[in-house]
Amino acid sequence: MNQTIRMVGFDADDTLWKSEDYYREAEAEFRRIVGEHVDLDDVGARLYAVEKRNLALFGYGVKGMTLSMVEAAIDITEGRIPASDIHRIVSMAKDLLRHPVELLPGVADAVEAVASRHDIVLITKGDLFHQEAKVRESGLSRWFQRIEIVSEKDAPTYARLLKEFGVAPSEFVMIGNSLRSDIAPLLELGAWGIHMPYHVTWAHEAEADVDCAHPRLRVVHAALELPDLVHAISQLAAST
Amino acid sequence: MNQTIRMVGFDADDTLWKSEDYYREAEAEFRRIVGEHVDLDDVGARLYAVEKRNLALFGYGVKGMTLSMVEAAIDITEGRIPASDIHRIVSMAKDLLRHPVELLPGVADAVEAVASRHDIVLITKGDLFHQEAKVRESGLSRWFQRIEIVSEKDAPTYARLLKEFGVAPSEFVMIGNSLRSDIAPLLELGAWGIHMPYHVTWAHEAEADVDCAHPRLRVVHAALELPDLVHAISQLAAST
Repeated sequence: MNQTIRMVGFDADDTLWKSEDYYREAEAEFRRIVGEHVDLDDVGARLYAVEKRNLALFGYGVKGMTLSMVEAAIDITEGRIPASDIHRIVSMAKDLLRHPVELLPGVADAVEAVASRHDIVLITKGDLFHQEAKVRESGLSRWFQRIEIVSEKDAPTYARLLKEFGVAPSEFVMIGNSLRSDIAPLLELGAWGIHMPYHVTWAHEAEADVDCAHPRLRVVHAALELPDLVHAISQLAAST
Repeated sequence: MNQTIRMVGFDADDTLWKSEDYYREAEAEFRRIVGEHVDLDDVGARLYAVEKRNLALFGYGVKGMTLSMVEAAIDITEGRIPASDIHRIVSMAKDLLRHPVELLPGVADAVEAVASRHDIVLITKGDLFHQEAKVRESGLSRWFQRIEIVSEKDAPTYARLLKEFGVAPSEFVMIGNSLRSDIAPLLELGAWGIHMPYHVTWAHEAEADVDCAHPRLRVVHAALELPDLVHAISQLAAST
């Protein structure tokens, strides 16, 4: 078969730019605020439990996380937290939504190089409004044929998108830091996955069962490696 | 020219199903909660001012509104509101996100009838996660070729969508309750607009300057009127 790679997808948060670090800082600040009212060592775990419980209702993103933080702060302190400290939590969310977009090393060059050979698309989940703002600020949007912001990155969502793009799974490579959201569903559909781990990963995103030796999976540790690897995958796909 | 209507777009909230009523109820509840701590008659206006100020950061939807309510409740009571009442505000948001989808009268039949003659798409703004849940629950999703959830319904957004759909503005009719979001930008682009007013409209959505006698604008007051009107527009467009 003369089949080759026709399109390359990029995840955004913690693949193109920093994100989880900001969430970690917010969580540390949350623990400090709540820690002024209770002496507990499981504040982080209790916040995660509330977030996880609310995920089906709020979805991903800063606003849902903040509402979970407000709820958790009240629960954990049994209502003793003053309004002024809840205000600090809401202000923290606003800072998080305003933080500048910081591209990860080598990303700008890598995206341009991959785009010079292939159609590229950006596929990210989370809050529509915040993600669009980040894409705009990143300066990268001109390289992407399409920018898709979805509510969940699972196999049915990717199948729908590939159908809309008119690309078969075997012709598609997805690049991202999350095994759960960027890699596992693509391998399941018959597409290729390039895992680019980030130094911190939200517990939720790390929950995935992927075979490290899967023939359509590759791992890189720097954006610099991407253009050659995509080219190699394209040649390999064409030869099989 | 043998030009005709090739695609019809529907707005969702307060066009296909009830929405603003739920927001109004939440706002009334907010005024009751805050009213237990202060004796002011401009609580609603102060909430709207906070919402409007946060719109550029939060975008539309229940989660952003709720964060604005938490912020406004703390501001208005000068920090005197107890955590338990803030918890009531967050719970109210969760109820709002869980409320069942209630189709407006005649909508199910009208959507099916329009879909029998034209490709139809759903174009809505607001929170991605919540809107997707509502579309799923509405039972209408099978009729729509595409479901587009966008962060702002302005002329550039509609222009991008029409380009993606491969449809010229003159071949497109948009149906919705908001002059600002569903009608004005389409008339500007050269498309058709069918305004279907709802009995309540959020102040923000009513802010639009539309000529009632615009040749590509029609107004209906019941979904029942839609199939014949779309057909008539299509014939008119073909004859000019």
